[in-house]
Amino acid sequence: MADRLAVGIDIGGTKIAAGVVDEDGRVIARTRRETPTTEPEAVLDAIVEITAEFRAELPVKAVGIGAAGFVDASQSTVLFAPHLAWRHEPLRDRVARRTMLPVMVDNDANTSGWAEWRFGAAQNEPDLVLITLGTGIGGALVIDGLPYRGHFGIAGEFGHMQVVPGGNACECGNLGCWEQYASGRVLGRRAAAAVAEGSPIGRRLAEAAGGPERVEGAHVTPLAESGDEEAIAWIAEVGDWLGVGMANLAAALDPGLFVVGGGVSDAREMLLGPAREAYSRTLTGRGYRSEARIVRAHLGPEAGLIGAADMARLTARRRRPANPAARVRVRAAARSGRSPKRRR
Amino acid sequence: MADRLAVGIDIGGTKIAAGVVDEDGRVIARTRRETPTTEPEAVLDAIVEITAEFRAELPVKAVGIGAAGFVDASQSTVLFAPHLAWRHEPLRDRVARRTMLPVMVDNDANTSGWAEWRFGAAQNEPDLVLITLGTGIGGALVIDGLPYRGHFGIAGEFGHMQVVPGGNACECGNLGCWEQYASGRVLGRRAAAAVAEGSPIGRRLAEAAGGPERVEGAHVTPLAESGDEEAIAWIAEVGDWLGVGMANLAAALDPGLFVVGGGVSDAREMLLGPAREAYSRTLTGRGYRSEARIVRAHLGPEAGLIGAADMARLTARRRRPANPAARVRVRAAARSGRSPKRRR
Repeated sequence: MADRLAVGIDIGGTKIAAGVVDEDGRVIARTRRETPTTEPEAVLDAIVEITAEFRAELPVKAVGIGAAGFVDASQSTVLFAPHLAWRHEPLRDRVARRTMLPVMVDNDANTSGWAEWRFGAAQNEPDLVLITLGTGIGGALVIDGLPYRGHFGIAGEFGHMQVVPGGNACECGNLGCWEQYASGRVLGRRAAAAVAEGSPIGRRLAEAAGGPERVEGAHVTPLAESGDEEAIAWIAEVGDWLGVGMANLAAALDPGLFVVGGGVSDAREMLLGPAREAYSRTLTGRGYRSEARIVRAHLGPEAGLIGAADMARLTARRRRPANPAARVRVRAAARSGRSPKRRR
Repeated sequence: MADRLAVGIDIGGTKIAAGVVDEDGRVIARTRRETPTTEPEAVLDAIVEITAEFRAELPVKAVGIGAAGFVDASQSTVLFAPHLAWRHEPLRDRVARRTMLPVMVDNDANTSGWAEWRFGAAQNEPDLVLITLGTGIGGALVIDGLPYRGHFGIAGEFGHMQVVPGGNACECGNLGCWEQYASGRVLGRRAAAAVAEGSPIGRRLAEAAGGPERVEGAHVTPLAESGDEEAIAWIAEVGDWLGVGMANLAAALDPGLFVVGGGVSDAREMLLGPAREAYSRTLTGRGYRSEARIVRAHLGPEAGLIGAADMARLTARRRRPANPAARVRVRAAARSGRSPKRRR
């Protein structure tokens, strides 16, 4: 048991979600707090505090961190995090120094994708594209059953593929990025415009949110669920762009499965139905090829921390061979750890 | 020596190029003929005849075929070839039955990419995107030093990623595919229009081609090389779209290297200069990340047959273990065969 628990910490632009995760991907303790977005030191302090709190109660053996940013190929340094203050932050070593635990750092979408492959929607599919629809689009690749991070560590930035030349301006500095058309941001933009115009749906959103100034993109899905035609159409439009972009990814990567997670995926078939339709309509070679399945993520908002903990646990075990005999056992464990395992 | 020679056959929409290739990627015998595009049986006959001719002279031990089409994940069946008459053609087994040799079938861009990684421009770069600019765009991926073909065998169809919503109609049935903006087809279309309009560059092209009816896209590059400003601008425009599309691929895949081959790459820096500029301009996260190099392919038009032969040779050796000791040797050979080797 002792070496089977790891801390997973998911550092998003607004929230830090953390938990202690066992070898079957179960979260057996959890905590949340606001992300201190302007102070890199404060985020580091929070990580160390959370780890210490968990450790006082449970024998954790490693720390995995999923961060909303570019992480380098050695899983040690956050190169750039648009919503945080980190620039070339050597996070792995700084946390390891203050916790004396093995630490793994990866992009939050990569850790979520890993969790879905190990314990969630993608357990039997080794060629996997994960798409996380939050405010933007996060992405992860699993290839031949292993995470693929690219040569420099930052593969999977699907949201910044250009889909409309000269299109909507993106926070990344480009125009027409996919996430400007197929993410929660689109719903937020439409909702804000509707409120500003005082249109009927704007008034319905304001009512649902408890005031026009409180309206966010997240209010659109409940409204659509209640049967609001316009809200349904907005989500369908996002789904349509999602499908077009997935067909682009399929042309390049030909995966067996797309897993769609993130808050916007709460819209379920209102999103995925139009996405599948657009995908089948625009997939190159359709009719002559097998088509990837498109499913919703299973693990919900804890996927990122579950995957981070699991990756840290597997990495830590691989890194600590005591003697040749132990090394063989460690390798066997790492191998079996990589194969899909049902969540009990 | 005996088990070190393999036949490579590159089946394009207009030409079949074939050769006998040694273990260092040298072509030691070669032949060419027209592709019989309407008769699947005639292509099969040609493959068998070419193999028999080579075999009468040299001890070839395997046949590798690179075909311009979708090949399934087991490297045996051509699912669909837009420029040939094949539909679900079980090519591997049909050739094997008539030659009694081990046969490997793959997409022609995959075989070209493999050749560049083994013997050409990408020898030290295990995370590689190959882009072949001919009439359309072919593509191949090498990931962690192995060809990546996708879950169903048809990854790398980069040319059919949509870059302009509602854009130019593509032969694949979609609108706005990348190859409608960044391939030889663009030069052909511009050249044809210029000839039809009787514009100055149209007259210059007709003169170079020996008559207006003979003008093709391939005449643009020599004209640009002679200093023609308009021809240079046309190639730069293709290069610009090439760079934008490569930035999209880098967002998703983060490779270490792009290798650009195919006939259009004969324009060299007139193409690659603007491509690099557009790539650096539109790459997401630029300034915070390492950037892939962009280089021209080294092996020229024989890359496809060289790679096909090499893949067939390696596959055949892996498939023929005589006894356990031999099996160990075979594996060692296959492993060493996978590592980069300089062309002597």
